[in-house]
Amino acid sequence: MPKISQKGLAMPQSPIRKLVPFAENAKKKGANVIHLNIGQPDIKTPQIALDAVKNNQLNVLEYSRTEGSEAYREKVAAYYQKNKISVTADDIIVTTGGSEALAFAMGSIADADDEIIIPEPFYANYNGFATASGVKVVPVVSKLENNFALPPIEDFEKLITPRTKAILICNPGNPTGYLYSEEEIRKLAKIVLKHDLFLIADEVYREFVYDDKEHYSILQEPSLEQHGIIVDSVSKRYSMCGARIGFLVSKNKEVISTAIKFAQARLSPPTYAQIASEAALETPQNYFDEVKTEYVARRNLLISELEKLDGVKVAKPQGAFYCIAELPIEDADDFAQWLLEDFRVNNETVMVAPAAGFYATEGLGRNQIRIAYVLDQASLKRAVHILGEALKTYIC
Amino acid sequence: MPKISQKGLAMPQSPIRKLVPFAENAKKKGANVIHLNIGQPDIKTPQIALDAVKNNQLNVLEYSRTEGSEAYREKVAAYYQKNKISVTADDIIVTTGGSEALAFAMGSIADADDEIIIPEPFYANYNGFATASGVKVVPVVSKLENNFALPPIEDFEKLITPRTKAILICNPGNPTGYLYSEEEIRKLAKIVLKHDLFLIADEVYREFVYDDKEHYSILQEPSLEQHGIIVDSVSKRYSMCGARIGFLVSKNKEVISTAIKFAQARLSPPTYAQIASEAALETPQNYFDEVKTEYVARRNLLISELEKLDGVKVAKPQGAFYCIAELPIEDADDFAQWLLEDFRVNNETVMVAPAAGFYATEGLGRNQIRIAYVLDQASLKRAVHILGEALKTYIC
Repeated sequence: MPKISQKGLAMPQSPIRKLVPFAENAKKKGANVIHLNIGQPDIKTPQIALDAVKNNQLNVLEYSRTEGSEAYREKVAAYYQKNKISVTADDIIVTTGGSEALAFAMGSIADADDEIIIPEPFYANYNGFATASGVKVVPVVSKLENNFALPPIEDFEKLITPRTKAILICNPGNPTGYLYSEEEIRKLAKIVLKHDLFLIADEVYREFVYDDKEHYSILQEPSLEQHGIIVDSVSKRYSMCGARIGFLVSKNKEVISTAIKFAQARLSPPTYAQIASEAALETPQNYFDEVKTEYVARRNLLISELEKLDGVKVAKPQGAFYCIAELPIEDADDFAQWLLEDFRVNNETVMVAPAAGFYATEGLGRNQIRIAYVLDQASLKRAVHILGEALKTYIC
Repeated sequence: MPKISQKGLAMPQSPIRKLVPFAENAKKKGANVIHLNIGQPDIKTPQIALDAVKNNQLNVLEYSRTEGSEAYREKVAAYYQKNKISVTADDIIVTTGGSEALAFAMGSIADADDEIIIPEPFYANYNGFATASGVKVVPVVSKLENNFALPPIEDFEKLITPRTKAILICNPGNPTGYLYSEEEIRKLAKIVLKHDLFLIADEVYREFVYDDKEHYSILQEPSLEQHGIIVDSVSKRYSMCGARIGFLVSKNKEVISTAIKFAQARLSPPTYAQIASEAALETPQNYFDEVKTEYVARRNLLISELEKLDGVKVAKPQGAFYCIAELPIEDADDFAQWLLEDFRVNNETVMVAPAAGFYATEGLGRNQIRIAYVLDQASLKRAVHILGEALKTYIC
């Protein structure tokens, strides 16, 4: 039999993939499983976007332009300008989801065995894209004790080698919910300039920022003009994860012209999804206001309920819709599986994402879970109640 | 300024990218440009597919399952079974276009510096995906004189090294239009079994087979069960290139489970496009019959008109909708640019794809062009007339 590639063998599994059969089994047995494990919001997609697709007049579903249509990119540029990010259509490539933007960014700036420094815990798929392209992820630890704030800049300094090509952040963070301050972005700017690195920022949760905080994009920082690459997506912004439309944004012309070559190989981003995404730009402000109000209420409920549980520590998120909780257990993988297999309250249980999959350092995060608060408040409240009861039983 | 990656620098440009500004300039000056250079069919997308999207009832545009929905994959399996390819839903991953299926296939079986043997001329983007993943394309020359038939199997033998992981074919071929016979597939099966390689077949033009020939898929060949990987797409089959839906198909479980890990990193294929593609499976047979009749008429017209031109040699394609023509010139790049800049017949000119971009061997194909016959017959006839007049002027 011919052999699979080394990198194919090394490709990480999704952190929750091995739990899926247990969840399916629990459902088969008639239990209700409350999913705290997924980043699929329950929020309705803006009607204007849904209608644009329903009313489309295409007769031939053609390729779009490789980098997305001129008209759409112009509108996306206007969206960024409104968000104080001063870019033009030429600085934007429309990609198939934020995922592809990240793959293009990595491919454009790093070769096999090059290194990218990422504060951990981080979005698990960064590992997947790094492995696929042979790039080495170098983690720098951020801590629950200070809400996963930017690690001391000396910690980054220590990790920089001649092979370091970039620092990659997610802001606000998945899975941490941490929002980097302007000061923290400036610190990052200073170090990437000093070492002539790129700074890649996954800003897909830009709109999900709470407590009157403001998001500060890496491309608002003038010194980062040639060093900054934004990875973005419509998935969470308009609750249209299934569209698969994202953006790579950079004012560095060489980055854009290189990323376009990667984009050409895959021809074009999906056409229907661009129709939906272009229309979504006209979503009225009250849609976002309502969504934000709802997420703040969910977060407040979730955090206050979690804090009531004995031995549970939780970081207070200021953005996105995730939080990391530390549980008084040793192995969240085992706990998560046990919840699905053996634990019920009124025939209900919860599925959580064990956090170890969000760390690159072996052994870190084993007693942590990631919770996505993309459920209605009643379900969230029941879920935390179940977690609390489960912990009592599990620990004994 | 931070540096672009080596592979980013090495990524090939699309063979026609540098001609695009000349085409745009010609149009600005009021000329009509007949595009013989693109693979975007003018054929209408099946109404049933268009309607499915227009009538969709989604309220939340959610992620789909990473490998495509069970229901859709079941139907795709039935499609293959109807085409004598005996696979089940578990052997199929729904991808974002055939492009992504190819990227997953390469990633799953080859590491950096591994080698894949490809008969040339070949679809130019194979080079892009190989470069992106550090895989080395090893070309084996096929020749216009015998319609780009499979090169002698000894030519493959000579190129096999310990780093050879696969042979990659496109059947029927872009850019050659050549349809491999059952006997040729058997020859390939023998050599990949002997050397324990994978055989990847890009079969996206499966339906576009003429002259009462029948397509013989690599997965109809029982000995290839563990060695064969099909790359497929809905793009040409239903004239829905903009959907971006394709398939990776293999009966090798390890290939599928590895490719799914690559698929997980990018989350899911586009949702609207899957709705269109699932509905397209119900396209009535007369749609395909009419399309085939039209392409045969176009091909016959194109070839007979080209054969009338002095010094022009043309391979007779039996499938897909491309042909390679050899012109009595030295440099098709220069000729193609000159056509757009300086040559008009009744204020019309043509844009062709210089064929050198479809060869990996330096210097081959320089006097060849690829013509896509995806235009109505009147335009095709005018285009060949313009080519003929242009050659007379250009050669003098």
